[in-house]
Amino acid sequence: MELIGERINGMFKDIKQAIIDKNPEPVQEWARKQTMMGASFLDVSTGASAENPSEALKFLIEATQSVTDTPLSLDSTDYDLIEEGLKMCRAPALINSCHADRHKIERVFPMAIKYNAKVIGLAMSEEKGVPKEADTRVALAMELVAAADEFGLPMENLYIDPLILPINCAQDYFTETLETLRQVKFMADPAPKTTCGLSNLSQRCANRKLINRTALVMLMAAGLDSAIVDACDEELLDAVATARIILNKEIYCDSYAGLFKSPRYNTR
Amino acid sequence: MELIGERINGMFKDIKQAIIDKNPEPVQEWARKQTMMGASFLDVSTGASAENPSEALKFLIEATQSVTDTPLSLDSTDYDLIEEGLKMCRAPALINSCHADRHKIERVFPMAIKYNAKVIGLAMSEEKGVPKEADTRVALAMELVAAADEFGLPMENLYIDPLILPINCAQDYFTETLETLRQVKFMADPAPKTTCGLSNLSQRCANRKLINRTALVMLMAAGLDSAIVDACDEELLDAVATARIILNKEIYCDSYAGLFKSPRYNTR
Repeated sequence: MELIGERINGMFKDIKQAIIDKNPEPVQEWARKQTMMGASFLDVSTGASAENPSEALKFLIEATQSVTDTPLSLDSTDYDLIEEGLKMCRAPALINSCHADRHKIERVFPMAIKYNAKVIGLAMSEEKGVPKEADTRVALAMELVAAADEFGLPMENLYIDPLILPINCAQDYFTETLETLRQVKFMADPAPKTTCGLSNLSQRCANRKLINRTALVMLMAAGLDSAIVDACDEELLDAVATARIILNKEIYCDSYAGLFKSPRYNTR
Repeated sequence: MELIGERINGMFKDIKQAIIDKNPEPVQEWARKQTMMGASFLDVSTGASAENPSEALKFLIEATQSVTDTPLSLDSTDYDLIEEGLKMCRAPALINSCHADRHKIERVFPMAIKYNAKVIGLAMSEEKGVPKEADTRVALAMELVAAADEFGLPMENLYIDPLILPINCAQDYFTETLETLRQVKFMADPAPKTTCGLSNLSQRCANRKLINRTALVMLMAAGLDSAIVDACDEELLDAVATARIILNKEIYCDSYAGLFKSPRYNTR
């Protein structure tokens, strides 16, 4: 299970302020913490409000890479900005993200290949938005899988995101997300990887952490390989480690419960 | 989600002693507690060591029914004993359990119909034991579903148990259990109900409660309607309530997190 730490994002007040002040310390602290807890990638986003997104992204990447070698996930809808970021990344990065629209695929997939990056492909498009039904999402995911084949993006570098919406406004979408995941794992051999933005599920909900960890193990049982999460939530990490044991991804031993407290456990 | 409280069982020391002493109090206490926590059924078993199983079962049923109207689950491999118990039950009971063997089905299903009881049908047989592969379990479950149709047992009174083995000795069985569940829900319309003995999964394991609640939500996402559980485990109940919200079985509201602390929440 690859966990992508969500915390270096200008949507959070401390990161927003760090960008304004050009103060790398809060960014470095989250980079260290998330790495210690075992994050496989660190998501890096300026947030929507950054005055100079290009400068802000460079600042975040530099601050992060000054304290850790953990690969980055570059989170933006501006592909030129992402390309600037890719040039700075020391380890192969993750592009977050590409919709299932032909003109976006044509921009993103060749760039991913050029920089040896991975790509999160969203099961949505400009025309269809976020479809409710699994079948429509599966069809959009298939466009991305076919394009990976066409452009020569290795299938293990494509992370299909079946999309998660908040349960307090789209409660009937989650079971469709589970069904999409199951079907995506049958799309190719080897199958594409899968990921999702977990915290979306509980936006503005009571009891967020309980909702997140309960959903995450369901998603893992349906074929989720990776997720963008609060990588410092220990109960979430406990749930992930236990799910890996139950799903026979790691061999059971009585001390498994202690193992997931070890730094970098989840990178295995 | 129907939770079947596992605690009135001669395998537990206090219940074993209560049977020996003919002391109803420990039994009554567990009957009250499990009912308060929302159990839909109370499983009642003498355990294997009872000297006079018939007397012991009658004692347990009387003690339980003296303090609660919660329906009972009669847990024995001796069908004559179960029939004695069924005659004493005030509410329609659950027969726990019947293997997918023809001579057992012929004994149990007509009895269930006579006493308006429900039946847990196990996806195992004398010849095949507990099959590892989902396909074999599904075939055995189908025998039970076809027999329900043949004998006239209402499909909603048949609870298919896909079987759960301990992960510390049969770690590769659980994903087959999930797959069996998914397929059972397509077997008939209306589909049979499903159940399982959850605590089996973590027998002699470290971290039992974490394993149990993590597995339970995965099972619910795959189609589990019911489970024999520690009905007094509050974190398990939290996970069940949250899973019901995520799976769109109950409408989300910000106070859902408080609701599952209410007595009898899980009977809904």
